[in-house]
Amino acid sequence: MYKNKKISISCDWRKTPDKEKKICAENKTKLYKYKGNFTWQGIRTERYKSNGTNWSDIVRQTLIGSHGETAKFHLRYFEIAPNGYSSFEMHKHEHVVIGIRGKGMCIVRKKKYEIGFLDTLYIQPYAPHQLRNPFDKPFGFFCLVNAKRDRPKIPDEH
Amino acid sequence: MYKNKKISISCDWRKTPDKEKKICAENKTKLYKYKGNFTWQGIRTERYKSNGTNWSDIVRQTLIGSHGETAKFHLRYFEIAPNGYSSFEMHKHEHVVIGIRGKGMCIVRKKKYEIGFLDTLYIQPYAPHQLRNPFDKPFGFFCLVNAKRDRPKIPDEH
Repeated sequence: MYKNKKISISCDWRKTPDKEKKICAENKTKLYKYKGNFTWQGIRTERYKSNGTNWSDIVRQTLIGSHGETAKFHLRYFEIAPNGYSSFEMHKHEHVVIGIRGKGMCIVRKKKYEIGFLDTLYIQPYAPHQLRNPFDKPFGFFCLVNAKRDRPKIPDEH
Repeated sequence: MYKNKKISISCDWRKTPDKEKKICAENKTKLYKYKGNFTWQGIRTERYKSNGTNWSDIVRQTLIGSHGETAKFHLRYFEIAPNGYSSFEMHKHEHVVIGIRGKGMCIVRKKKYEIGFLDTLYIQPYAPHQLRNPFDKPFGFFCLVNAKRDRPKIPDEH
């Protein structure tokens, strides 16, 4: 299940390129109006496709964190399609996950949490975790992280 | 309108007492299950009452930030009753406001933003701002802030 590490989709994703940071370095008050269907005006939807048959598409939208904001946190909206999942990973930085669309699961160490609308999960530092959607509708959630954060690692045991 | 500074309700509120910090210093993975009606299991609702007739009750729930979490941000849910408003204030730290219940207004400098469900407003450092509910239903929103932040000030001009 976790053999294809190259195509593993991290819940923390990749860094914003420096070039993009410079272009977007505005740090201005801005309203990102909700357009419906879990999209926002001025926010790009990024779709990650997988090579493996076991992976479903996952969509990310970075609401706060890629427009030059100086806040010490980033706000992202992720959506995992039915049967999709992120990589099982760990890192020093914390996660806060808030269910927004449908429902899904989060595995933290060996414990399973079901996350529905407005359920709010705090994941402590270094706890191995994975987000999954075993249901038949999209699972959408906000994920809050520190702006400065360490790179995720794959836990040894897994 | 802003004469009663003593009872002014800041959108940043007061600090958590040190005693409370010690008691809650757990920093453990935890799910705050949504109970419906904009309340969460394990999260206390704090109601602030005003002495002045021009102020409506405002309710705050601190979802992330008062349980010993080490994340560099706090997540709070606020609810402003019809005709209620926060103080007009400014500070170095940024705000991110996400509409969750009903709709409301945010004044930033001289610009007005209407905030409905999932609308996401970034307020830049030092921009004087105020949240208001001129509508006939409660206005509920998440407010994200840095964990370490400066104390709000009342702008000179107002």
